[in-house]
Amino acid sequence: MHEIHAALGGELLGDPALVIHRIAAIGQADAHAITFIANPRYRAQIESTAAGCVIVAPALAEAAAQRGAAIVTPDPYHHYARLTQWWAARLRSAVPTGVHASAVIGAGVTLGDGVTVGPLAVIEAGAVIGPGATVGAQSYIGAGVVVGAHTRLAPHVTLMHGTTIGARGIVHGGVVVGADGFGFAPHQGRWDKIEQLGGVHIGDDVEIGANTCIDRGALGDTVIGNGVKLDNLIQVGHNVHIGEHSAMAGCVGIAGSAKIGRGCTVGGGAIVLGHLELADGVHISAASVVMRSITRPGQYSGVFPIDDNASWEKNAATLRQLHTLRDRLRGLEKKIDTP
Amino acid sequence: MHEIHAALGGELLGDPALVIHRIAAIGQADAHAITFIANPRYRAQIESTAAGCVIVAPALAEAAAQRGAAIVTPDPYHHYARLTQWWAARLRSAVPTGVHASAVIGAGVTLGDGVTVGPLAVIEAGAVIGPGATVGAQSYIGAGVVVGAHTRLAPHVTLMHGTTIGARGIVHGGVVVGADGFGFAPHQGRWDKIEQLGGVHIGDDVEIGANTCIDRGALGDTVIGNGVKLDNLIQVGHNVHIGEHSAMAGCVGIAGSAKIGRGCTVGGGAIVLGHLELADGVHISAASVVMRSITRPGQYSGVFPIDDNASWEKNAATLRQLHTLRDRLRGLEKKIDTP
Amino acid sequence: MHEIHAALGGELLGDPALVIHRIAAIGQADAHAITFIANPRYRAQIESTAAGCVIVAPALAEAAAQRGAAIVTPDPYHHYARLTQWWAARLRSAVPTGVHASAVIGAGVTLGDGVTVGPLAVIEAGAVIGPGATVGAQSYIGAGVVVGAHTRLAPHVTLMHGTTIGARGIVHGGVVVGADGFGFAPHQGRWDKIEQLGGVHIGDDVEIGANTCIDRGALGDTVIGNGVKLDNLIQVGHNVHIGEHSAMAGCVGIAGSAKIGRGCTVGGGAIVLGHLELADGVHISAASVVMRSITRPGQYSGVFPIDDNASWEKNAATLRQLHTLRDRLRGLEKKIDTP
Repeated sequence: MHEIHAALGGELLGDPALVIHRIAAIGQADAHAITFIANPRYRAQIESTAAGCVIVAPALAEAAAQRGAAIVTPDPYHHYARLTQWWAARLRSAVPTGVHASAVIGAGVTLGDGVTVGPLAVIEAGAVIGPGATVGAQSYIGAGVVVGAHTRLAPHVTLMHGTTIGARGIVHGGVVVGADGFGFAPHQGRWDKIEQLGGVHIGDDVEIGANTCIDRGALGDTVIGNGVKLDNLIQVGHNVHIGEHSAMAGCVGIAGSAKIGRGCTVGGGAIVLGHLELADGVHISAASVVMRSITRPGQYSGVFPIDDNASWEKNAATLRQLHTLRDRLRGLEKKIDTP
Repeated sequence: MHEIHAALGGELLGDPALVIHRIAAIGQADAHAITFIANPRYRAQIESTAAGCVIVAPALAEAAAQRGAAIVTPDPYHHYARLTQWWAARLRSAVPTGVHASAVIGAGVTLGDGVTVGPLAVIEAGAVIGPGATVGAQSYIGAGVVVGAHTRLAPHVTLMHGTTIGARGIVHGGVVVGADGFGFAPHQGRWDKIEQLGGVHIGDDVEIGANTCIDRGALGDTVIGNGVKLDNLIQVGHNVHIGEHSAMAGCVGIAGSAKIGRGCTVGGGAIVLGHLELADGVHISAASVVMRSITRPGQYSGVFPIDDNASWEKNAATLRQLHTLRDRLRGLEKKIDTP
Repeated sequence: MHEIHAALGGELLGDPALVIHRIAAIGQADAHAITFIANPRYRAQIESTAAGCVIVAPALAEAAAQRGAAIVTPDPYHHYARLTQWWAARLRSAVPTGVHASAVIGAGVTLGDGVTVGPLAVIEAGAVIGPGATVGAQSYIGAGVVVGAHTRLAPHVTLMHGTTIGARGIVHGGVVVGADGFGFAPHQGRWDKIEQLGGVHIGDDVEIGANTCIDRGALGDTVIGNGVKLDNLIQVGHNVHIGEHSAMAGCVGIAGSAKIGRGCTVGGGAIVLGHLELADGVHISAASVVMRSITRPGQYSGVFPIDDNASWEKNAATLRQLHTLRDRLRGLEKKIDTP
């Protein structure tokens, strides 16, 4: 407890000598676990939890202290986030740094201080890996790629030439950055390739989920702003711009040249068509399809409501005649209004 | 024929000395092929097929025997499945086992009897690979990962530390298990990372399709039950639980902390939102979006019916005024009922 | 300029000695850039651009020549595509060919003239790599796979045994070709695997985007026709056939045994269910779901229109009673017509 409190602050109520072995959800916590209550609605759980220590807001301080140790802080969820970071950093510090002997490092590669390169990684000529950065096992870093300080690439990451990523980023396994965008000129019934000559520019503090793809630009760059968070299996097309601190959940697709504002969120499985803009602060619900630009902040949705299959079939069949229904309704209104 | 019959049983009608070179669909079968009829509707094809042998149900035994060899069994589709398994196992037995000299094996790794490790695979410290298991070329097995007996990992699989997978599993190329879940605390306009400290627990007899992702839990584990089958490019979020013998088709997304029952199926491209439950035996149609818990077994759907583009445009435009239409209809009803 | 004109033709107006350093979009072009105008609507930009040279159609030749160099050609977009190809080929020619010492090459592998094999690639026994082809770093080529002449595989590509790909193809990072299709026979509450014994046959001039998956056939092959273009994160199920010169955008899912015609397009995120056919020249809009065969060419759509969340909620709730609304409308019509 003492060590956690010294690292993260807050007001400690109870015994600083309490030994904490794990972080746990409030329902799974035992006497050596620390947990948190982010939502005052869950205050009843304070009495039932077996947790050694609970992180709470000031309003719950008294209730928490009556049952054991507590850390009091204005934003318990943020305090919990920082606790997980401190915990993970402690675990990571046990992993040795250095370049594994089996890695293949090209000519003129620059490795900063404290860089870790995993087994069987490939770093092509002229790449620059910032201090404290990690290149995971079997990852591929293309020629001239720049990786910022303390950025961590998992195993099996692919950064093609023309990619730069800033500091403190996290890139998960299977991510492909800088593959060709999807550009073809139709010509005599065939598709003529437009070679993709741009790159990808990724800011600081960006996290990219497993198997997500970010294509290189056709001429200019694809640009991912500082603090953007992308979940798994997301497709980001060529020349997309994503504004700072926007976040997207899994399976989202952003088509080429779309421009997403700052502080936006896109729910899982949503699709944003190409060449359109979302203003700052636009929030797209999961599985919705954005087919036109959205110029005002707010929440937007468009999903067919799920139902038991028989009801859906009837409603879907009727939906295919919806325009006719509207005309019939209009006809009735006319008849009644002009008797 | 003799060898197949000896291995798989059923009642053999016709010449046991018939030589079988391939398994084929009934329309492509020749005199050295074995095929099957799973559906009595297709009985007419018995007469036209050139197949050397047909697997049939008892009701079709006589018709099948009149034209050549037949295997009679109560469930021909299941018999066919077992035949493919026997066939594939025979092909696989030609592949040599052992650890390729180019693989990188960490300290304290345990390799069971008959393990195969492909070229340029990486197995980190303390991992345990069960007897008869295969680690494909260029795959990555994180520290302390446990792989069950006879489980087969294709090339380019990534199992991060904290992953366990049971016996007889099949994991296809590009799968990433144990990447961080998508967890952030919003804080002053930024996203503060919640480090993902849980693991992934996968049961026995689980198959995972190419480029599918299963995230590690935030605190507890993500859990995949025995016998679960996942197709390609599926996203399984942190702390999801999938019940035994459930199956999901390609491109499905399951958001964090969703709890899927036993014996469920989810059609391709469907999305299940987070923190909700599907009861046992729930079947979600392809491309449907589950936005609330479903407590009763059955088939559920929610898809906008496709139409020629002009019709769709008219109906979609009317749909955006649907609530108004309802009000107008109600208005008319009032007028008529109160003349 | 002189060099570009000599390679690509067209009518050159202006100074052949002009030095071109880059290709740029018309708004970003400077005096050493070449750009293009594909659409006559943008002719106003001819006057404002700083581009050293503009590729234009004959109708704009005079206007373009008044402000600097121009190349006049009947199809400027196609000319631009060819220019990017010439530019990219020039850059690629600087990359050395040959087999990297760290690659693992199996017995009986055939490498054509001028083949490049990147570091830590694995090529299994009996594979055939055509002349001028490239196998990217850390890629996996299964036993007996055939790669056509001048086909380029990016790093981290997986081609499983039973795959053939024709000439001049491009396969991006993380692609998995030849993983098992999703085939199971339900048996006593479990899923019994149907081993996937077919292969994948890919024609000439096919491009496959990052992390896309193409499954092997169950018995016959999965077939991708000549000139097909697939974007990123696409799922192509077992025994799918895609006709020549069809193109699909990112995140599309094509379920097993679907048959897509020639010259079709499928928009991003669309889903095509299994065992159905699309005729030649069918165009599916983004995020639409094809649930039945389509026999006539044309554009087809089916997407719930996005709206602000409150409007969507009201319309979606009404949609769940749509069939009832229709019945009420019919009731009113009867009342009015039979007074």
